[in-house]
Amino acid sequence: MKTYSYPKPDLWPKICERTAFDVPITKELCRQIFADVYKRRDESLRTYTKKFDGVDLSSIVSADADLKKWADKTPMALRIAINLAAENIKKFHLAQKTDILQETVSTMPGVVCWRESRPVERVGLYVPGGSAPLVSTVLMLGIPAKLAGCKEIVLCTPPSVGEKLAPAICYAALLVGATTVVNVGGIQAIAALSLGTESVPKVDKIFGPGNQFVTTAKQFAGEYGVAIDMPAGPSEVMVIADNSANPAFVAADILSQAEHGPDSQAVLVSTEDVLIAAVKKLLKLQSQGLPRKDIVRAALENSYIVKLGSIDEAIKFANTYAPEHLILNIKDAEKVVSEISNAGSVFLGNYSPESAGDYASGTNHTLPTGGWARSYGGVSLDSFVKKVTFQSLSYKGLKSLAPTITAIAEAEGLRAHAEAVRIRLRKNKV
Amino acid sequence: MKTYSYPKPDLWPKICERTAFDVPITKELCRQIFADVYKRRDESLRTYTKKFDGVDLSSIVSADADLKKWADKTPMALRIAINLAAENIKKFHLAQKTDILQETVSTMPGVVCWRESRPVERVGLYVPGGSAPLVSTVLMLGIPAKLAGCKEIVLCTPPSVGEKLAPAICYAALLVGATTVVNVGGIQAIAALSLGTESVPKVDKIFGPGNQFVTTAKQFAGEYGVAIDMPAGPSEVMVIADNSANPAFVAADILSQAEHGPDSQAVLVSTEDVLIAAVKKLLKLQSQGLPRKDIVRAALENSYIVKLGSIDEAIKFANTYAPEHLILNIKDAEKVVSEISNAGSVFLGNYSPESAGDYASGTNHTLPTGGWARSYGGVSLDSFVKKVTFQSLSYKGLKSLAPTITAIAEAEGLRAHAEAVRIRLRKNKV
Repeated sequence: MKTYSYPKPDLWPKICERTAFDVPITKELCRQIFADVYKRRDESLRTYTKKFDGVDLSSIVSADADLKKWADKTPMALRIAINLAAENIKKFHLAQKTDILQETVSTMPGVVCWRESRPVERVGLYVPGGSAPLVSTVLMLGIPAKLAGCKEIVLCTPPSVGEKLAPAICYAALLVGATTVVNVGGIQAIAALSLGTESVPKVDKIFGPGNQFVTTAKQFAGEYGVAIDMPAGPSEVMVIADNSANPAFVAADILSQAEHGPDSQAVLVSTEDVLIAAVKKLLKLQSQGLPRKDIVRAALENSYIVKLGSIDEAIKFANTYAPEHLILNIKDAEKVVSEISNAGSVFLGNYSPESAGDYASGTNHTLPTGGWARSYGGVSLDSFVKKVTFQSLSYKGLKSLAPTITAIAEAEGLRAHAEAVRIRLRKNKV
Repeated sequence: MKTYSYPKPDLWPKICERTAFDVPITKELCRQIFADVYKRRDESLRTYTKKFDGVDLSSIVSADADLKKWADKTPMALRIAINLAAENIKKFHLAQKTDILQETVSTMPGVVCWRESRPVERVGLYVPGGSAPLVSTVLMLGIPAKLAGCKEIVLCTPPSVGEKLAPAICYAALLVGATTVVNVGGIQAIAALSLGTESVPKVDKIFGPGNQFVTTAKQFAGEYGVAIDMPAGPSEVMVIADNSANPAFVAADILSQAEHGPDSQAVLVSTEDVLIAAVKKLLKLQSQGLPRKDIVRAALENSYIVKLGSIDEAIKFANTYAPEHLILNIKDAEKVVSEISNAGSVFLGNYSPESAGDYASGTNHTLPTGGWARSYGGVSLDSFVKKVTFQSLSYKGLKSLAPTITAIAEAEGLRAHAEAVRIRLRKNKV
């Protein structure tokens, strides 16, 4: 890990830049697959699943009976863990629920305006498969979707050989109440959710993480009027540590980030030379026993340490970086909370590792990466609803607003806007 | 206007499709201008402003003294109108303000999670110029930005000949408290907000309407980590009318939509032949006196009427179309409010024309078009903030979550995630 020693603030934006990756080949592949799924629909999904996953799909959608059969193979200890994590996620997201009717304001006599919350009706949840099926992603997306009242919850995940889905994924899918489970992954899954096929319903919004293929495909979804949760990039953590931090915990947190993927980034910001030296040593030691050691090594090459003069400066650096995860492993961490302006999820103190939030504390783990925390929050119940504005004016209400509306409309050169008011006052039948 | 008589529900999605426009030339132009603004910065803004607006800019940013001088030229009646509209917009958006600290939940003993709201620090507001400067857009974007606590509010609007900005725009910019007013419009304005130049601050999120150049440029902003308010398309209205509706009001509402631009769309959905016939006749009559008659004619060619058997069906059709503006010119309109699931802003009854919401009732006029109302709400105070998640675990809290975290982490093949918990329990110094 490279170390920056007391970098000047005008260098911070440069240090904080993430590696951009633009992949014209992936874009071209997306264009082809979207066009083919549009034309050949289910048949196209079979072709690409055979090509990319090596699986001959007999059914594109899992039957409920099959889901139940596979779910039953989930070991009991894992079921208990999933149940408890689900409970906590439910509790935290339920607290985000607002009244349907909101902010009724009578801005003037006879002019009543309000907003009402409505679920996004059809949502698609992408759950990556591959080496490890991400059961936690099913919970993090499925639970708020259900709480929000989404009518269709379509879960897509790639099949493994033998056309089976991982038992824990099936268990979690049934637990959250997914309405359709599609055994398709990759670009073709996102294309199916965007366009609809005989088996896969078209959705209004797509959620979930994925590799560069899935991420690029999600950008394409926008061209078909389908929204996405947020722009995605490699996962990242920033740890701010002072002399109250246990260097072994700091090293473990950095490694748990590094094992996500070779493009993951961990940034340690500290005021303490002794701690920095200890963490460096412990990173080597702790990484030895890890199964994903090679990934960890690659990610650490992409990571760095920043030495700064004060915690105050460290917080300012964090706001410049806008990390997905921010661990404040410092004394009286709660005192600096109000200073944090740009971060996805923040972990306070020595006993709040990122993995708590990744799985089980109740907060969502779908968070803004790549500096998007400057403008986006993580996935929450809000991500599954939208708010519709309503207004009701009486004749008197309109009359009192009329001079205002007509003056601005005329100033903007929009005469018919003014006329829509004038005609109502002229032809008043009340 | 084409009429669809009792179309079957399976044809609705096809009828509701908006005309897509893909403009490779615009994309190429955006690519060039972004690259040039990146390289030549302020100098590039001068070049393109000369080229596209025919103006030799002496200063890219308006000095406060100049803004005040120009604002003073706003006629008194217009100032009064702007002030009242601003008051109403402020009232409605202030009601959307939430506590900073939200949803503190102790999901388990020793596990405390919550969210806090933070303003998006730097926002860019694009205000179209051209034939009519949109003073209402300054209010609709600037007021919630200020209420949300955004630190930098950068307003961009194209200069007119003589390098002057419209007096009302200056008046409104000062009223809402814009921190910088940039005399640049078009693609080059969006590029400047995305990249930053010597004079124009880089922002985190860009808001506002615009022509196809501005809309395409906003899509490019995403590649530089800058968020946008929502995808944009031509403006649209749907009017649902029964026999309680005054056909003259319905016609006036359709025309006020049609004058926005030749690509605007108005859709009339009704159960009543008599009303449909009357509206058709009145559209001809009322459009005669309008200054933007040619635009209106083009927009009406792009518009249509749907005859359906019941208001219930009409509402279902509206939910399929997902209109930006929905006028419920029907008896007891409030009774169907709960049935509306996809719409931007809804206007109830005979005395709630769209122009009330466009200017002065207090609701926001920046709304989802092109069917995006299925997944997006309009601009609100929420659009100018993001929510950050926090969590604080005690040793005991982490201990009680440990089996859950480690079981799921191991199932996902992420050993280091489990280790970050185990090491804290092993090395407990409490």
